[in-house]
Amino acid sequence: MIRSVAGGVTAPRGFRAAGVACGIKKQRSGGDPPLDLALLVADEVVPAAAVFTTNRAVAAPVLVSRDHLSATGGRARAVVTNSGCANAATGSAGLEAARAMAAATAAAVGCRPEEVLVASTGVIGVQLDVDKVRRGIAAATAELAPDGGERASLAIMTTDTFPKSCAAALDTPAGTITVGGMTKGAGMIEPRMATMLGYLTTDARVEPPVLAAALRYVVDRTFNAITVDGECSTNDTVFVMASGASGIEITDPTDPRLIEPLIHVAGHLAREIVRGGEGATKLVTVRITGAASPADAWLAARTIANSPLVKTAVHGGDPNWGRLIAAAGRSGADFVLEHASVSVGDVEVFANGTPHDERTPEAERVMQQAELTITVDLGTGGPHEATMWTCDFSAEYVKINAEYRT
Amino acid sequence: MIRSVAGGVTAPRGFRAAGVACGIKKQRSGGDPPLDLALLVADEVVPAAAVFTTNRAVAAPVLVSRDHLSATGGRARAVVTNSGCANAATGSAGLEAARAMAAATAAAVGCRPEEVLVASTGVIGVQLDVDKVRRGIAAATAELAPDGGERASLAIMTTDTFPKSCAAALDTPAGTITVGGMTKGAGMIEPRMATMLGYLTTDARVEPPVLAAALRYVVDRTFNAITVDGECSTNDTVFVMASGASGIEITDPTDPRLIEPLIHVAGHLAREIVRGGEGATKLVTVRITGAASPADAWLAARTIANSPLVKTAVHGGDPNWGRLIAAAGRSGADFVLEHASVSVGDVEVFANGTPHDERTPEAERVMQQAELTITVDLGTGGPHEATMWTCDFSAEYVKINAEYRT
Repeated sequence: MIRSVAGGVTAPRGFRAAGVACGIKKQRSGGDPPLDLALLVADEVVPAAAVFTTNRAVAAPVLVSRDHLSATGGRARAVVTNSGCANAATGSAGLEAARAMAAATAAAVGCRPEEVLVASTGVIGVQLDVDKVRRGIAAATAELAPDGGERASLAIMTTDTFPKSCAAALDTPAGTITVGGMTKGAGMIEPRMATMLGYLTTDARVEPPVLAAALRYVVDRTFNAITVDGECSTNDTVFVMASGASGIEITDPTDPRLIEPLIHVAGHLAREIVRGGEGATKLVTVRITGAASPADAWLAARTIANSPLVKTAVHGGDPNWGRLIAAAGRSGADFVLEHASVSVGDVEVFANGTPHDERTPEAERVMQQAELTITVDLGTGGPHEATMWTCDFSAEYVKINAEYRT
Repeated sequence: MIRSVAGGVTAPRGFRAAGVACGIKKQRSGGDPPLDLALLVADEVVPAAAVFTTNRAVAAPVLVSRDHLSATGGRARAVVTNSGCANAATGSAGLEAARAMAAATAAAVGCRPEEVLVASTGVIGVQLDVDKVRRGIAAATAELAPDGGERASLAIMTTDTFPKSCAAALDTPAGTITVGGMTKGAGMIEPRMATMLGYLTTDARVEPPVLAAALRYVVDRTFNAITVDGECSTNDTVFVMASGASGIEITDPTDPRLIEPLIHVAGHLAREIVRGGEGATKLVTVRITGAASPADAWLAARTIANSPLVKTAVHGGDPNWGRLIAAAGRSGADFVLEHASVSVGDVEVFANGTPHDERTPEAERVMQQAELTITVDLGTGGPHEATMWTCDFSAEYVKINAEYRT
């Protein structure tokens, strides 16, 4: 029932966006100045929620956005984002800069500073040039457009190799609910880049507590279910704003009319982050079955998805069940070797405590694919499952992260 | 007071050892057949203890050694080890093979099968050739010698690039206590290798419960404080045997007369494993200070020591404090950014929430060294500390683990 639609974060009614160049990102010789300031504005102050990094070394914009959402009880008019500078590890001057960014946006769009959420992404440990940001906010306000979503998605990129934008619509008897989204990815190609930002919009009518609960539910199954290298940055944030323009009221945070299109958009964007991961050449779905508890299922999925030995085996196209059972076994999840099984695509390569070595050639063909699913049953007989997405681990990843100064 | 002495596991009185070739490891063209069976025998049945892998996908020899130590109440006469085949993921046939290995050793040296401990290391998922092992045990028994420790350390190697053997003596008013040890390392260069084995011997007189407690204490501060890639294999085991030949009785598991030489030997061997890690070019000591609890100190140390971004930065010689505070921040340990600090060698590169960028050239010189210490103070004001050892992460690691079939 869910249809893909164009427009990214501005696909739902009630939102405008813009992306401009304000001079924070260095200009590469020859081209246009790179877009580095994105503005997403709702037509009025609307319910909003966010999920922030769990890293205790949080950046200034995260602190400010958290304060603002708490001050308004979960409402916002705008989200302003700069790329090129993370405004992290910048001390009290950084906090002032993040507050100034909110104040300038509030003045430009006509709301209170607390009704503005702030995000920054880029190099850590460098002070933000607030004058440049102020000029960018003025320019972006002038360019705000109901089809500005795609341009905004360009302005939040750092070293992403492609922009990541998505929107979906769900037709219901009461009308159509649309969800839009954009994200920037897990690229830490340059030194000290703060990593992941996500933005979701919808025209559903949702009160703040319901929206916050729905966002948490969706993020746990999408953005929190991906990994590139197990790292978690100082700036990671996912925002959602609900304009209510569809007139369809959602009062239950698990209502599929809101959750399904949100998962569709957020899941797509999350997988795009993995696909754009540093040095990644493959998108791998890690599926755990037969877990004794939901926590065990996630523990095993996360351990496998982050295992350097599994990720290098995937890179080499090797259906290495030994590394998969070793990772599941050390994860801390309940694991019964004699009843466990491992499949690569549809090819079962390990069961009943021993490998099916004769199926190696068939399994190797699956491992050559650019997208593949690895399923590990933990053998406990339990009904619990989890799915995560990861990428392979290439020498290019090491090169990118070790040699940027050479 | 601790003196290094020669002889490895046979340095303490009361032990003999041998290493022979029994044909399990493939012969490389031209050379002598590689040693692949090691036998370590005490002159009589002596107190023994072991620490086994926490991986729930445990190998057959681990199950058998665990059973035997439990059946004897912590006593053993011999440890027999084969390399080249891990006897892991081999089902019930594998269990029988491990028991047969113990029985053959018992018959050869003259003890009960339960008084023999068993270890295997090598390829996972391949059945052990018990006939070859039996012939090896017979040959090794004939060659047992009080200076056989170094030769035994060659026979436990898989893809280690060098043997790892060590011994130390401590002179006390009551006499001299000697501790010997050997280990094989964290090389998973070939597919599905089960990784780490360690063997410690001493001539102290120690009852089994005291010996087991002392081993746990020592392993937590040595073998459990190293990481190459965060992986934990199906066969990891550390054994200790105490001959009592020195006549010096130890009744307290924290008695420094036993603990200090044990830590000296085990710590040296553990660092040798890191130095011999796949693709490793640097030995890094990760020191955490200012932690609110011992658990927090270990959590932060382990997260930093396993962080791909930190390990690639070390490889690239980059004093990247941003990655260090991001790893400490996401570790789950209490962390106060404004009071945290980061030093590379003696050079403080981050403090009071902001970097000392002017010290980058000085810090880069430290990062070029083959051995270096990174200190992160978590800023909580707490008194707790932890130290781990890790290596850098090179493209060679990925190459080794991804491309072994090409």
